[in-house]
Amino acid sequence: MANCLVAQSGGPTSVINATVAGIVKANQLNPVYDTVFGGLHGIEGIMQEMLVDLSTMSDEENIILKQTPASALGSCRYKLKRTNLEDFKTIFEVLKKHNIETMFYVGGNDSMDTVAALSEYAKEHNITDHRFVGCPKTVDNDLMVTDHCPGYGSAAKFISNTALQTWLDVNVYTRQEVFVLETMGRDAGWLAASACLSGVIDVLILPEVAFDKEKFLTTVKKNITEKNKCYVVVSEGARFENGAYLAAGEAKNDGFGHAILGGAGYALRDMILESGVASRVKVQDLSTAQRCHATDQSLTDVE
Amino acid sequence: MANCLVAQSGGPTSVINATVAGIVKANQLNPVYDTVFGGLHGIEGIMQEMLVDLSTMSDEENIILKQTPASALGSCRYKLKRTNLEDFKTIFEVLKKHNIETMFYVGGNDSMDTVAALSEYAKEHNITDHRFVGCPKTVDNDLMVTDHCPGYGSAAKFISNTALQTWLDVNVYTRQEVFVLETMGRDAGWLAASACLSGVIDVLILPEVAFDKEKFLTTVKKNITEKNKCYVVVSEGARFENGAYLAAGEAKNDGFGHAILGGAGYALRDMILESGVASRVKVQDLSTAQRCHATDQSLTDVE
Repeated sequence: MANCLVAQSGGPTSVINATVAGIVKANQLNPVYDTVFGGLHGIEGIMQEMLVDLSTMSDEENIILKQTPASALGSCRYKLKRTNLEDFKTIFEVLKKHNIETMFYVGGNDSMDTVAALSEYAKEHNITDHRFVGCPKTVDNDLMVTDHCPGYGSAAKFISNTALQTWLDVNVYTRQEVFVLETMGRDAGWLAASACLSGVIDVLILPEVAFDKEKFLTTVKKNITEKNKCYVVVSEGARFENGAYLAAGEAKNDGFGHAILGGAGYALRDMILESGVASRVKVQDLSTAQRCHATDQSLTDVE
Repeated sequence: MANCLVAQSGGPTSVINATVAGIVKANQLNPVYDTVFGGLHGIEGIMQEMLVDLSTMSDEENIILKQTPASALGSCRYKLKRTNLEDFKTIFEVLKKHNIETMFYVGGNDSMDTVAALSEYAKEHNITDHRFVGCPKTVDNDLMVTDHCPGYGSAAKFISNTALQTWLDVNVYTRQEVFVLETMGRDAGWLAASACLSGVIDVLILPEVAFDKEKFLTTVKKNITEKNKCYVVVSEGARFENGAYLAAGEAKNDGFGHAILGGAGYALRDMILESGVASRVKVQDLSTAQRCHATDQSLTDVE
């Protein structure tokens, strides 16, 4: 029998390891491959032959892996350029050397592009003994073709729970207060929108809808007048009509040319305080915690 | 039989409602008081006779209350001054009018001071038919006489879990990176120190120990040199030897003269980037989420 390889790429999620655990378990129950290799640090590690044997994983290890957030095999942000033929040659050499018939690549849109590029290269060079399978992963829920992407549900649950819990917290005082919850979501508002499952959101700001400062401040003022509180949820990718991010002052770029965001919540706080519609604004940036929250809370049990 | 009153004060916790649920339940099992009143918004609401009858709470409501974070009866930040005799008169009038023999006050050091002030006033005025019982509450674990204060355990569990989870996240990439986790803790380092239960912390910065910038940067550099990563936990109340908060630029004051903190993590990020010991720093400010995290995750079940 031939072997297979599974690797992870892009940002971690709470359940990206469950996909790896599932592939290992499926091959134990119904052996299709001799060895299930794990590739460390995605395509970057595979080119350096950083492979580990996952085939003999015990049931206990499998259960632990499934419940552990973040990418156990490590990740990378390496961009496989279609014009860089050396990279393709290296990858196919590694696959051939280790008799790897199928490569499973767990990741988001960029990783799926890597899978497509490898498939195209194989087709163009009449290579028929390797195939490439993309396994969907993203907290943003913006992966093409998928409806609910693994990674979104757990992040959405964490966000909606945190929205309800912080809303309960902000409402214990009678004082005037605006609470701003910032979620991830560069181009997709699914994560921010998931906060609405809590049923307590007054204002929702998504990247898909151009931000209107005047309308926003009017809505905040209306809520403050009515109940002395306003609960706002904003996506990190929220932007003005001209395309500028609310958090533009802090935006930088990662290796893919994506803007590194963060700070939309603080930008809203400054707008509210400067306009005078409210005098107290608290910001909660969920940051990394929302994508690596353990689906099972038993990691450490101190109480 | 006489009645009793329970009220909540100060910042919420994940378990402050469990104390109220316990008082109600105990009186149902072993009736000492005719009616258990809940006072809304602490001492401030009590002076306005904002009382509700909790005596008839069902078992189901009791279980829900026990698992719900934040202060269900509402809270206040009203400072009961010993010189303001009008306030004392008002409170004792309300207690007398509703035949309240015992007042339970759930809160932190400021609330315990309120309890002491009411007891002293009663003693000085030979009032013997009312007594005042303080019920400990604080996430900071800095409440005098208590060893482990209700509120600390749940916050510590959330912090140590989040530390482990974000550490797993930051380690999926091979790139150089410093991660800074900011916790609450104005004067007490218990919350920040709880992150050590995760076993992954490289640098811990507590308010009790004067912050040494040079030493800090040297330690960060050592970790970066050794493993390309450094995981830092900082208490919001961390300060320099001269007493200035790391987050001094953003510090304001609340009604008690306490500094409103936040921003110690961003202050460390700026120091690291300016010094050049690392080029990438991510900050996670746990903010409100750490004190209102539901001890049971069943609040909403979307997956």
